[in-house]
Amino acid sequence: MGESLTESRTETALPAPGGPRHAEHRRTAGTPEGRGAAGPQRDGRPAPAEEHEARMLLERARAEVDPVLRAALGSLPGPMRRIAQYHIGWEQADGTVVEGGSGAAAEGGSGKAIRPALVLAAAAARGGSEARAGAARAAAAVELVHHFTLLHDEVTDRETTRRHRPTAWTVFGDADAILAGDALQALALRLLAQDPHPAAPAAAVRLADCVVELCAGQHADTALERCAPTEVTLDEVLAMAEAKTGALIGSACAIGGLYAGASETEVAALDAFGREAGLAFQLIDDVAGIWGDPCRTGKPGGADAAARKKSLPVAAAFASGHPAAAELAELYARPAETEDLERIALAVERAGGRDWAQGQAADRMARAMQQLARAVPDPEAAGGLLALAECVTRRTG
Amino acid sequence: MGESLTESRTETALPAPGGPRHAEHRRTAGTPEGRGAAGPQRDGRPAPAEEHEARMLLERARAEVDPVLRAALGSLPGPMRRIAQYHIGWEQADGTVVEGGSGAAAEGGSGKAIRPALVLAAAAARGGSEARAGAARAAAAVELVHHFTLLHDEVTDRETTRRHRPTAWTVFGDADAILAGDALQALALRLLAQDPHPAAPAAAVRLADCVVELCAGQHADTALERCAPTEVTLDEVLAMAEAKTGALIGSACAIGGLYAGASETEVAALDAFGREAGLAFQLIDDVAGIWGDPCRTGKPGGADAAARKKSLPVAAAFASGHPAAAELAELYARPAETEDLERIALAVERAGGRDWAQGQAADRMARAMQQLARAVPDPEAAGGLLALAECVTRRTG
Repeated sequence: MGESLTESRTETALPAPGGPRHAEHRRTAGTPEGRGAAGPQRDGRPAPAEEHEARMLLERARAEVDPVLRAALGSLPGPMRRIAQYHIGWEQADGTVVEGGSGAAAEGGSGKAIRPALVLAAAAARGGSEARAGAARAAAAVELVHHFTLLHDEVTDRETTRRHRPTAWTVFGDADAILAGDALQALALRLLAQDPHPAAPAAAVRLADCVVELCAGQHADTALERCAPTEVTLDEVLAMAEAKTGALIGSACAIGGLYAGASETEVAALDAFGREAGLAFQLIDDVAGIWGDPCRTGKPGGADAAARKKSLPVAAAFASGHPAAAELAELYARPAETEDLERIALAVERAGGRDWAQGQAADRMARAMQQLARAVPDPEAAGGLLALAECVTRRTG
Repeated sequence: MGESLTESRTETALPAPGGPRHAEHRRTAGTPEGRGAAGPQRDGRPAPAEEHEARMLLERARAEVDPVLRAALGSLPGPMRRIAQYHIGWEQADGTVVEGGSGAAAEGGSGKAIRPALVLAAAAARGGSEARAGAARAAAAVELVHHFTLLHDEVTDRETTRRHRPTAWTVFGDADAILAGDALQALALRLLAQDPHPAAPAAAVRLADCVVELCAGQHADTALERCAPTEVTLDEVLAMAEAKTGALIGSACAIGGLYAGASETEVAALDAFGREAGLAFQLIDDVAGIWGDPCRTGKPGGADAAARKKSLPVAAAFASGHPAAAELAELYARPAETEDLERIALAVERAGGRDWAQGQAADRMARAMQQLARAVPDPEAAGGLLALAECVTRRTG
């Protein structure tokens, strides 16, 4: 339900988001020494110090969350464990261990752990290192929900490849991939039920609500795919993308806030921050799905166009009223042919779909920064979340 | 994952279980007046008073749990709600309300609610009416897990009919049936996360563990189906049936005990009671799947034999070493033909599969009674659970 942030498709540069609060956060967020030395670069690309901070946060999150995940998956009965460990990238299909499987860089590794990192960064932003230390189980629970939805969506979307590896259902069959997904959802909510932290029940409610929203988003996605492109409104596609991608990023940030004892208003602002950043990611990822670099994705180039997906730039193109939209409709009505992919990309671009998506992404990031300033007024404390949000939208490594 | 107890296939009579403790429970369980007046009948069939008690308990459980279930399903976004309400039997495929949809007798109604009734009866048995009143959410959570697994298993087993209605995936498609199941699991664990009762976290852990066991059981079932009949041992089939059917019945009883503040030992005995009763049910249901009455099931007669299922009587027949087992192996190796069904039934019977299954069912019920006596020493307090266990195994209406 939503693209994996661990395999987004390109490093498409995002126009620098505007807004005075965002600028303030960018100037001062993070450790003063690191940030003072490097500072954000003028071209809107992240400063090396920001990139470095995001990498550090992701590595640290993996180090803290991996043992919890490994213990949780290790508690599964043999066949379910094997499927889950294959899916997450720790084992090959034959059960042998993937070397370096916990590292983000490792081919087939368990990925960037951006969602757990957001849980931990949000807890740290509101409650310091003590709150962060208490949120490891919650961070693992969020990651398990992410993997459960991937397992199921791969089955129903018939996706055959993820992160350069065959998807679980292609190896173990539909039924077992569905069962392994079911088991991962149970493990996620079990982690929270076992967690003695006073925020755990509220986090479990929030995570369960998020699962329902993810399901609704995935339903909307497949329902919209069945409609003619001209029948689908841009608002419908935006709402679907928020449910599919924004909801879990938002929940990750909100749950971190809950673990730091943040107020309801602050938790809501953290959720909104994550949702906006998640939507910015989706916009950038959709751009990459048409114009991006297949080497980074393990998927063929122009895959979304080939599948006639009504991604956000495409929906914007159809809604534009531009003459190129009519040409696009004609191309979308034809059976997929490789030579059409370039024409589709061109038509979407001429109808303004690419510019709209990049502008929207910048706008969403600006809104994310506003929400972040509301949730974490101290720019220094907000630095981790800021660095991760930029990482989410591929502005950093 | 496991046959629905709401649609078991026959009223196959179970030989009266033995054991002095069971006899004691049977003599004295339930309200002294009612039981004293009727008493168990000599032919091993339940006394009218026992039947009446089970019916009362099921109706009361429905009345207590239905509002919780309706509120939970009502909280789902439109499309997920519609699928869930269709699946549970409250709505037709076009969204119109099923008249009398809450009644067990209603065609397409939400069924007997045996699992919620067991949660409430176990709470009452250990903690009286106050404990029972506090366990309604937990009872609804157990029922939601049951329905989530049905939705998914119907997809992967390609079951087209349940309780005389087309299954959800045949109406809404595989993807949406899977999503609705995912949402129901989330709702189940959300109910417990929201429950302020001190037993709720332990119940959530137990229910999540049960989901994992149900998944493992369903995996084992499909894996065993792929093996040649002679490669499958009786122990494997028994273990699979316990995980698929016994686990949730056991968890229902255990969770009721948790809500009544029962000790660990008592909770374990309640779990074992439910597991044994659940396995007794499965044995009886498997007998019905070969020799039973299709009018009660909404499935064609001999469906298990037609699908070449390695049900418990069949596994016992193969394990018997009887010459009829060789004939059975030959019949199972052939493509399904209607005229073979009678020959299969006869071969299983001649190889002792039917007698073994009925004897095992009686044995399991006797063990269930022993566990019940351990969990609830006061026979009067145990009356409700006893009546429901007999109902589970179709000894009562």
